[in-house]
Amino acid sequence: MASRSTQILEAAARVIARRGVRGLRVEELAEEAGVSTALIYYHFKDRTGILRRTLEFISDRAERYTTQVPQAEPLSPREELEQTLLLELQDTTEVRENSSAWGELRASAVFEEALREDLARATLVWTQDVAALLGRVRPMAPAAALAAAAERLTALTEGLSMRWLSGMLQIAHARTLMSEAIDAEVERLGR
Amino acid sequence: MASRSTQILEAAARVIARRGVRGLRVEELAEEAGVSTALIYYHFKDRTGILRRTLEFISDRAERYTTQVPQAEPLSPREELEQTLLLELQDTTEVRENSSAWGELRASAVFEEALREDLARATLVWTQDVAALLGRVRPMAPAAALAAAAERLTALTEGLSMRWLSGMLQIAHARTLMSEAIDAEVERLGR
Repeated sequence: MASRSTQILEAAARVIARRGVRGLRVEELAEEAGVSTALIYYHFKDRTGILRRTLEFISDRAERYTTQVPQAEPLSPREELEQTLLLELQDTTEVRENSSAWGELRASAVFEEALREDLARATLVWTQDVAALLGRVRPMAPAAALAAAAERLTALTEGLSMRWLSGMLQIAHARTLMSEAIDAEVERLGR
Repeated sequence: MASRSTQILEAAARVIARRGVRGLRVEELAEEAGVSTALIYYHFKDRTGILRRTLEFISDRAERYTTQVPQAEPLSPREELEQTLLLELQDTTEVRENSSAWGELRASAVFEEALREDLARATLVWTQDVAALLGRVRPMAPAAALAAAAERLTALTEGLSMRWLSGMLQIAHARTLMSEAIDAEVERLGR
């Protein structure tokens, strides 16, 4: 069974995905989570505390759904790279909710500085994971080239994801565009 | 001299860039523009009308600052492509304001449908412009490949732009990443 604080974080991700960061009121979150506002303040101190921990929660969840997929046979490095990035572009409730909440938390950082450091760290961890996978596909590529390719692929994932979530792009087409981008980067690193 | 409605749209872009779409109150907009709320309703009917026309206004402005740059000599197609995309990643007040407002309007479309059609149209026009420039660089490339490359390059511009605006990426590095992406796409289209 999920702990009380996990239950609150799951509710926070749902509320942010549904109404945005600026639509998050502690009273509404309490109702969504089925707990008292006092318990929320006890666990998270204030609104910034809630946002920070929700960011951490959705980052962990994304890491789980993009890596812990049971496989019949072990994947090649190239397949693992492709899977990790394409699993961010899936039309499931969990991914849609996670990506909407991530987009909202990032957008809120344009206006307020509170989350910037946490967001930068989460983005760095994700980019380094992708750079490591690229390095297994192209072991001879220099580290700076791997890092740059990983930054582009993760920023493109965010850009395509926003277009999909705002109804401007079909998910199947987003996945095709992403696959081709991976091809282009892997080829470029092999030159 | 700018007309009254242009003056209101300039103020709306400033307010949205500063506080977000959900921070836009008609009273505040009136104060920022130095006009009455009645005049705003007269010109734009309602809040959705304001958002729609602001979207159009910032799209036109982006087209102007990415294309109407005086040149000593005519640019090659490759230079023109690069200039158009890199001019979206400039640390000037106008570009910062325009990109923040664009990001906000797009993010708001995740939660409400009102702007989706207008946003899709503006995105399509931009993507088609970039596809046309790519076609001048690679005249033998098939139309579908040009369109896909243009979708990736514009979505990457949006992704990098959001990271820059939220303080996660230096502008010079964003421009380097973008230049390399253009290289990769142009090479891919030449194969």
